[in-house]
Amino acid sequence: MDCDLCERTGGELLWQGERCRVVYVEEPGYPGFCRVVWEAHVKEMTDLSDDDRVHLMEVVFAVESVLREQLEPVKMNLASLGNAVPHLHWHVIPRHVDDPHFPQPAWGKPLRAANPARTHPSTTALASAIAAALE
Amino acid sequence: MDCDLCERTGGELLWQGERCRVVYVEEPGYPGFCRVVWEAHVKEMTDLSDDDRVHLMEVVFAVESVLREQLEPVKMNLASLGNAVPHLHWHVIPRHVDDPHFPQPAWGKPLRAANPARTHPSTTALASAIAAALE
Repeated sequence: MDCDLCERTGGELLWQGERCRVVYVEEPGYPGFCRVVWEAHVKEMTDLSDDDRVHLMEVVFAVESVLREQLEPVKMNLASLGNAVPHLHWHVIPRHVDDPHFPQPAWGKPLRAANPARTHPSTTALASAIAAALE
Repeated sequence: MDCDLCERTGGELLWQGERCRVVYVEEPGYPGFCRVVWEAHVKEMTDLSDDDRVHLMEVVFAVESVLREQLEPVKMNLASLGNAVPHLHWHVIPRHVDDPHFPQPAWGKPLRAANPARTHPSTTALASAIAAALE
């Protein structure tokens, strides 16, 4: 099976659990952009057991909490799409009014250039805060 | 407060719970597009209590199950964005390879016209199946 998220971490590893991992995506214009990736090659949330589903969402919400605290976004965006890579993963995206697409979704043609004043947070600090939130 | 989802249902009502509702969005090219809308004016998932969070996701996943069964999409997309309307709601979108944006996210400039052969499902049948899934 040729699957990007089976073969690669998909970003800088911030947290590794038994069932899923959190990675940092260095996306231009989107400081704090994280993904939560299910370890097994599963396509949809409704392919998981109830317990796995609750666990995955708990990790997603822990990441959301940490990103809200550290980056104070105007809005959080959560999305499980996977049309190109049908291996269950969540995008956890802090949004700011001056990010490339705001108020549009964070995909497609940008409305403006990235604000260079918005720099990427320390991934060490993010990793510690996520670990603490998931203890 | 001037909020679209406080003032309006936001679509054809398919299911009404105490804490959230499911509405059908007649989106061209996207048969089966539903939204799950939290009743109270809350911005983020992490503003909800744990119990409310689990409940809202259970409703989202029930809608996903019903849409998978009735529409056999190639992929389901789930998203909580709310940049324009910061009132907690989930987009639950069955995707098909011939839909306007596939494999891109379902927003922004379409890649192709809607396939007229893909017609909207019966909202009565959807409503019954969602009610049954949530019993």
